[in-house]
Amino acid sequence: MTAELDFESWTCPLPLRDTPAVVMGHGGGGAMSAELVEHLFRPAYGPAGEGPLGDSAVVPVGAERIAFSTDSYVVKPMFFPGGSIGDLAVNGTVNDLAMSGATPLYLSVAFILQEGTLLAEVARIAAAVGAAAHAAGVRLVTGDTKVVDNGSGDGVYLNTAGVGMVAPGLEIGAHRAAVGDAVLISGDIGVHGVAVMSVRKGIEFDTTVVSDSAPLHGLVAAMLATGVDVHTLRDPTRGGVAASLNEIARTASVGISLTERALPIPAAVADACSLLGLDPLQVANEGKLLAFVPSADADVVLAAMRAHPLGSGARQIGTCVASHPGMVVAQTALGGTRVVNMPIGEQLPRIC
Amino acid sequence: MTAELDFESWTCPLPLRDTPAVVMGHGGGGAMSAELVEHLFRPAYGPAGEGPLGDSAVVPVGAERIAFSTDSYVVKPMFFPGGSIGDLAVNGTVNDLAMSGATPLYLSVAFILQEGTLLAEVARIAAAVGAAAHAAGVRLVTGDTKVVDNGSGDGVYLNTAGVGMVAPGLEIGAHRAAVGDAVLISGDIGVHGVAVMSVRKGIEFDTTVVSDSAPLHGLVAAMLATGVDVHTLRDPTRGGVAASLNEIARTASVGISLTERALPIPAAVADACSLLGLDPLQVANEGKLLAFVPSADADVVLAAMRAHPLGSGARQIGTCVASHPGMVVAQTALGGTRVVNMPIGEQLPRIC
Repeated sequence: MTAELDFESWTCPLPLRDTPAVVMGHGGGGAMSAELVEHLFRPAYGPAGEGPLGDSAVVPVGAERIAFSTDSYVVKPMFFPGGSIGDLAVNGTVNDLAMSGATPLYLSVAFILQEGTLLAEVARIAAAVGAAAHAAGVRLVTGDTKVVDNGSGDGVYLNTAGVGMVAPGLEIGAHRAAVGDAVLISGDIGVHGVAVMSVRKGIEFDTTVVSDSAPLHGLVAAMLATGVDVHTLRDPTRGGVAASLNEIARTASVGISLTERALPIPAAVADACSLLGLDPLQVANEGKLLAFVPSADADVVLAAMRAHPLGSGARQIGTCVASHPGMVVAQTALGGTRVVNMPIGEQLPRIC
Repeated sequence: MTAELDFESWTCPLPLRDTPAVVMGHGGGGAMSAELVEHLFRPAYGPAGEGPLGDSAVVPVGAERIAFSTDSYVVKPMFFPGGSIGDLAVNGTVNDLAMSGATPLYLSVAFILQEGTLLAEVARIAAAVGAAAHAAGVRLVTGDTKVVDNGSGDGVYLNTAGVGMVAPGLEIGAHRAAVGDAVLISGDIGVHGVAVMSVRKGIEFDTTVVSDSAPLHGLVAAMLATGVDVHTLRDPTRGGVAASLNEIARTASVGISLTERALPIPAAVADACSLLGLDPLQVANEGKLLAFVPSADADVVLAAMRAHPLGSGARQIGTCVASHPGMVVAQTALGGTRVVNMPIGEQLPRIC
């Protein structure tokens, strides 16, 4: 049996902040990415960058409130089981908007193309962008294309930015997670990351896992339609469930207690992770969401989620607690506890 | 003396549409870029991409109208006389919004960093982003950072998307250019492109020219404050004045007659262009705008422009005419005429 941890004396592993140059981990969505924002971008931006600099901002425009979000996509390979960089670029940004409770409306699409990339491949990606946007009910309204010299780029990089409308009175964010909240997940975890890794050059392996890339705003709408005061929503992409929960725990200064045996990890994901030495909690998802709701309302929200095709595997995986604020702690199957750390960098880079 | 051209039998040079792969010219903002949008992106996007796909979209959000724009920046070198990729990324997107008549409000900033890039260099660029945003009065509200393997990226790529608010009733666009309009420019042309080229590896040359990178929404506000019905605004960036005027002429089905001797081309730009064999009309600008206004109102608008620091060199350079619709024709200093073509690709790539 694992010994109970001493939360008082525990400290986060030292982040790699003394590197003079960019390393892959800076793009991993973990502690190094957060450091880059707090210790480099924020001071450098000065007064123009005050306030939150998160995945999505909710800001006023005249009488309305919009959600505004951006993401670049550099996934390698560009096509993988269950999707491509094209639908990832649409669903990822749609989901960032949806996690603010916004109705996604418009996307911009900016391509950086490497000279020599086949136009047929660009068209295939663009078709995936169009199909995903159509499926998500968002319009592609503005775009840009740049070309970089052969050897400078890497096929295709995509950036999408998105604008959505936020209903009056709605306030969903990491800061609202509160002691007593139930922590819900919409379904199986680790699926997208494993699907991409399975076709990554040099580490190919056979698996039945396909990416879960999907737009989640319909699921969010179904959850909000219950009338429950949803506190926090997050899509656990880069850095996985571990990074998202750590961010939320720190932002809201709450502890998060996870029940390890409640985590929906498909056998094929568990197998792949054990093969690659990865923690499924740190593997990226592209069609799942975490929700924090008052415990008393958890059943109502779970029922609404399960009635939606993208939430059929919804379940509670933990609770917000007053002890160990800022930390995520898993109750292991053996009855002990383990700290679920914020990933430092990225286990395997470029999965989105 | 140049003979008068036969407009009836003249055709646009054949675009290079039969290449199987991406070439640098596809990112040049000229005919090949336009082809990529019309013949590849638009069909591939399908119904989600219907409607204009321009530099900036004006779309409704509830009771308001917003302008929404995106641009990626891949300029090489990243620092050049008068600016850097950082301020370019802010001013370029602010200007795309301003050309719709919008008041720029919010920017997203997405970095794609090459592994191994010095963090000090990233910080220098981020500081330029912050300073330019502060100067332009826009807030940086959301961001993203990705890292690509060494050798895959090229130092730093930046994407900014922007949101602005459009005042009720305002309608400014290429489609509104009309026969009888005066064509105005806010100042010297070719300055940004020459400044970047002067420090480009392999073709360095001495020049006093520095980039004109600047945010133009204040100048636009001063023009709109005259109460004149401004028909069209455009910042002639990639592809220069030639590309912008050709696009407007085609969109509005008007002819544009330019007076060559009225074009404000600084001697240092003319010298550099003659050294490099470039046409100053095709060289990029980053702090200049073209305006189409009814001829009767030209003097009022010019006076307002000249009273603004960024419009002190404003002048009329041409007129919209009924003849040769869709074409731009320059009246040469010798009394003849020459067609000002849409650039095919780009004279020198990666200037923004």
